[in-house]
Amino acid sequence: MSTHYGRPRRMQTPAGFVHDEMTNADIEAREAALVPLTDSVRRLIDALVRTQVAEPELDGVRHRVDALTDELLADALPGPHGVRFGIEGGYRNYGNPVVGRGNAIAPPIDFQREGEAVWADFELGPAYEGPPGLVHGGVSAMVLDQMLGEAASAGGKPGMTGTLNVVYRHGTPLGPLRGEARIESTEGVKSVVRGRLLTRPTDGSEPVLCVEAEGIFILPRWARDEPDGADREHVGDA
Amino acid sequence: MSTHYGRPRRMQTPAGFVHDEMTNADIEAREAALVPLTDSVRRLIDALVRTQVAEPELDGVRHRVDALTDELLADALPGPHGVRFGIEGGYRNYGNPVVGRGNAIAPPIDFQREGEAVWADFELGPAYEGPPGLVHGGVSAMVLDQMLGEAASAGGKPGMTGTLNVVYRHGTPLGPLRGEARIESTEGVKSVVRGRLLTRPTDGSEPVLCVEAEGIFILPRWARDEPDGADREHVGDA
Repeated sequence: MSTHYGRPRRMQTPAGFVHDEMTNADIEAREAALVPLTDSVRRLIDALVRTQVAEPELDGVRHRVDALTDELLADALPGPHGVRFGIEGGYRNYGNPVVGRGNAIAPPIDFQREGEAVWADFELGPAYEGPPGLVHGGVSAMVLDQMLGEAASAGGKPGMTGTLNVVYRHGTPLGPLRGEARIESTEGVKSVVRGRLLTRPTDGSEPVLCVEAEGIFILPRWARDEPDGADREHVGDA
Repeated sequence: MSTHYGRPRRMQTPAGFVHDEMTNADIEAREAALVPLTDSVRRLIDALVRTQVAEPELDGVRHRVDALTDELLADALPGPHGVRFGIEGGYRNYGNPVVGRGNAIAPPIDFQREGEAVWADFELGPAYEGPPGLVHGGVSAMVLDQMLGEAASAGGKPGMTGTLNVVYRHGTPLGPLRGEARIESTEGVKSVVRGRLLTRPTDGSEPVLCVEAEGIFILPRWARDEPDGADREHVGDA
C-alpha cells in the first residue's frame, strides 16, 4: 500500500504524519548535504554489484563502511523517517524507496506534472537488474505503483493503492527510461489510474512500450470531507 | 519482466547468461567476503534514512563513501552483473534487487522450498517505507514478483512474468513478514502463480493477510524442448 497524499491542512493530518520545527531554509540546507551523500551511497551500491576486487580488500571496505554507519547513527531517529512537515509546510518523505531524497535504494525518480498527468525521465542501472541486461519486473512494478499514485495526487484524487495490475509487454532494458501516468476515471472514492514505462532512445529511434499498469486508488477518509476533494498541490513539491 | 529460470544445461543457456571459471570453492570464498560487506552497506542505507547528524558531518561521511566506491571500482565489471554460472554450475545473480547477495537494495530474501511451494520469513525496515510505518506498496509488488517467479521455478515452470496483479488488503507494517506462493495451474507455456504477504506476529497473535498477488509466467523458449519441461533444481541453490 503506497500513500500519495495531497498536502493536508494542519488539522487534517492523518495518523503517522509528523510536524516538526524545520523552516524551508532549514530543509534546503539539510538537502544540500543529504542529497549528495545519498547519491554517493547509490554509487557505492552500484560499485558493490559490479566490483571484482579481491576478498581482503572487500573486508577492508566493510570495516570502513561500518565506521561510517556508526557516525550516522550517533544521532538518528529510532524508527522509520515517516512523512514530515516543517513549520512552513515543507514536506519530506526522505525514506521513500522510489523518490526519497535520503534513500539510496530510490533511483531516485523526480516526477513532473503536466496538467493532471505526470511523467518522469530517469535511468535504472545495474542495481535494478532482473534478467541479464533487463530491469527486474518487480522494480518496474514498484516504480509504476509510485507513479500511478503521483498521478492520482496530480488529478486531485490522492490515495492508497487498492489494486495494481501490471502487464509486461517487452523486456525493459537497463538505462534511460520514461514513465507516464494519468487518472482515467473516478467514481466516488475510487480512481482508476493508468501508466506505462517506455524506452528512451538516445539515437532518434522510436520508444518501445515495455510495461503498462492500471491501479485503483482509494481516497483516504481524512481527505473526503474537503470541499474540493483534496488539496491539489502535490506533497512532493516541498 | 523478471526471470526465474531453472538451471539451464550448458548447451541451453539463453542469451545473456555468462559462464565463467569459478569453482564452488571460489564462490564460497567470494561470498564469505561479499555477503557481510553487502549487509554492512544495507545498514549504511538504513542509517542514512534515519540519521539526524549535522550537515558538516554528512559532508565528511560523503567524502569517505566516495573513496570506498573508488576502491571497489578499481576492478569492476563495466556493466551489470547479469546471471553467472561457474564451472561446477554454481549460480550467481548478485545484482538481483530482491535476492542478490551483492545488492544492498535487496532486503535480501532467502526463499525456501516446501514441495512445489515457496515461502520466506524476512524483515523490511525503514528503507522500505511508503505510508508512515507501512511498507511501500511498490516494494510489496516487487517482492511478490520475485516470489511468484521462484514458485513458478519450484513447480518446474520457470519463466518470465507476463502479468502481475496485486491486491492490497491491509496496510503492511514494517518489521517481520512472511511470504508464500505456489503454482495454481498450468496451460501450455503459461502458468498461473498465486502468492501473499502476511504479518509475522512475535506475540502469538494471528497473522494478518496484507497483500495478495497473481502472476502469469511464460515458459521461455529455451526451456520448452526439455523432456521434463525444465530442470527442477532451483537456480538460487548455488
